[in-house]
Amino acid sequence: MKLRDLGESGLIRKIRERFGPKAGELPVGIGDDAAVIDLPENYSLVFCSDLLAENTHFIRDLHPPDSIGYKAIAANVSDVAAMGGVATHFLISLAAPGDLDWIWLEAFFRGVEQACERFDIALAGGDSASSEHIFIDVSMIGRVRSGQAVRRSGAKIGDGIYITGTLGSSAVGLERLKSGKMRDAAVERHLFPEPRYQVGAAVANQAHAMIDVSDGLSTDLTHIVEESKVSGRIYKDRLPIWPGAEEHHALHGGEEYELIIIAPELPAIVEGIPVTRIGEIIPSGLEHQLFLIDGTRESVLYPRGWEHFG
Amino acid sequence: MKLRDLGESGLIRKIRERFGPKAGELPVGIGDDAAVIDLPENYSLVFCSDLLAENTHFIRDLHPPDSIGYKAIAANVSDVAAMGGVATHFLISLAAPGDLDWIWLEAFFRGVEQACERFDIALAGGDSASSEHIFIDVSMIGRVRSGQAVRRSGAKIGDGIYITGTLGSSAVGLERLKSGKMRDAAVERHLFPEPRYQVGAAVANQAHAMIDVSDGLSTDLTHIVEESKVSGRIYKDRLPIWPGAEEHHALHGGEEYELIIIAPELPAIVEGIPVTRIGEIIPSGLEHQLFLIDGTRESVLYPRGWEHFG
Repeated sequence: MKLRDLGESGLIRKIRERFGPKAGELPVGIGDDAAVIDLPENYSLVFCSDLLAENTHFIRDLHPPDSIGYKAIAANVSDVAAMGGVATHFLISLAAPGDLDWIWLEAFFRGVEQACERFDIALAGGDSASSEHIFIDVSMIGRVRSGQAVRRSGAKIGDGIYITGTLGSSAVGLERLKSGKMRDAAVERHLFPEPRYQVGAAVANQAHAMIDVSDGLSTDLTHIVEESKVSGRIYKDRLPIWPGAEEHHALHGGEEYELIIIAPELPAIVEGIPVTRIGEIIPSGLEHQLFLIDGTRESVLYPRGWEHFG
Repeated sequence: MKLRDLGESGLIRKIRERFGPKAGELPVGIGDDAAVIDLPENYSLVFCSDLLAENTHFIRDLHPPDSIGYKAIAANVSDVAAMGGVATHFLISLAAPGDLDWIWLEAFFRGVEQACERFDIALAGGDSASSEHIFIDVSMIGRVRSGQAVRRSGAKIGDGIYITGTLGSSAVGLERLKSGKMRDAAVERHLFPEPRYQVGAAVANQAHAMIDVSDGLSTDLTHIVEESKVSGRIYKDRLPIWPGAEEHHALHGGEEYELIIIAPELPAIVEGIPVTRIGEIIPSGLEHQLFLIDGTRESVLYPRGWEHFG
């Protein structure tokens, strides 16, 4: 069955059948002009979106559709966590060609469902249309305790630079996927990354600044030092490099969805996830820069992550 | 200048310069991992999205980019109004080719700005990426008094069927635009529709059901009777047809962004907008249908609006 045989109303019906029960807890769920959601007292709303375009973020013949669905959600869950919040509900806007096979969409929504279960979130609605290529935009809302949102701009001189988990597996996984290798642990981590969805809220009252590693450590940590008007120093030998990854994977690889947390002091484990101190925030000259310390050698670490339209 | 010369960070900088001051009233605005927004007490959140795909919703050579930007916002403002709510903040996800001229984007964002001013709403963030064709997804949040959200499913037998403003101008405008005619009032209404952004909240405590006319009166009113498990009867001679439009434009034309309000009784003018009673909700047999009364003749009115993937 092709998408055009199902039609827009058929697609919405299938989505309602699959995701309706959970969205049914909302005052208004899937299928009305908009969803209606209640927010508990003393919480602010967190609101973000992340889009995936065919041939830019994924190749239809290379990337399994369940991974595409899963990652579209995971990237947003990670962004909400990086604000110190917890994701709760999302919308999916999907544009796709009429001749797209329902099998693809079925697998895509299976990935979405997997993400819903893992992160305890619910689909609340969205929009759909036909187009020549697949385009997916997920907009997520979540909650953060009022006044506790953690920005990129709050890093203070003397703060530690912390990273959750390990770095490099997603970049290694992407290389192996492209070379047509079998699915191994690295490929699995690239296809089904694990955003630290509980860590962000757990450290929100201690963190001065936070960001998730979506474009690579060098790029995302640069955002922090630039927005905070400071510089930063990290130590090569303290980087929690994923076994099998190399230094450049860890420094520049994107889609890791680990959290960079800037705080005076953090425990070694938060919500079951290892947290490693890899450096510290230092005073800045005219330029807000990163320095990499390798034994007694110090070099400037330039951002070498992903930039669109380039 | 092309989009690729500007790059993603240049694009974000330009958007921040233009929309930053208003978003600056937020706890966290444009340029962090997510926006943070406060909701007043005793309000629920309204959350919806609307996507526009090049060659499906618009043709780059035919539709002025300021209209595309404006309409992307207006469609969502209308959806929030149709829930009885008021739109407040939105995100834009934009995928576009690297060789897209900045002049196009500049005009697009001018249209977005125009919508912000008219509807008193603010851009809070978004995402961007390169792609072969232009995709725009706007996700909107707004507020509705707790417990006052108006669904599609609440129509009761004996209720009046009301419509704001007039019907048919957008369909006429689209025809004239396609035939290459000069911009006249109908074309203007097609390009810069006026969603009834204050009417929805004003009637929320009297309306039993509500929807906006995005796919055409016949299609959108069918959603109401199907979701409410009733039927409806409308009178041809009561339709507030836009001068210059014909019956089929008024019955089936999309993108009108008028509100269909189902209520026992409404004043003739709400928030300065004329409101016309065009029919009533009646008991339903096995099928939930619409009937069109033309003098002494009664016929079934089938939905003939827009369906995607068809």
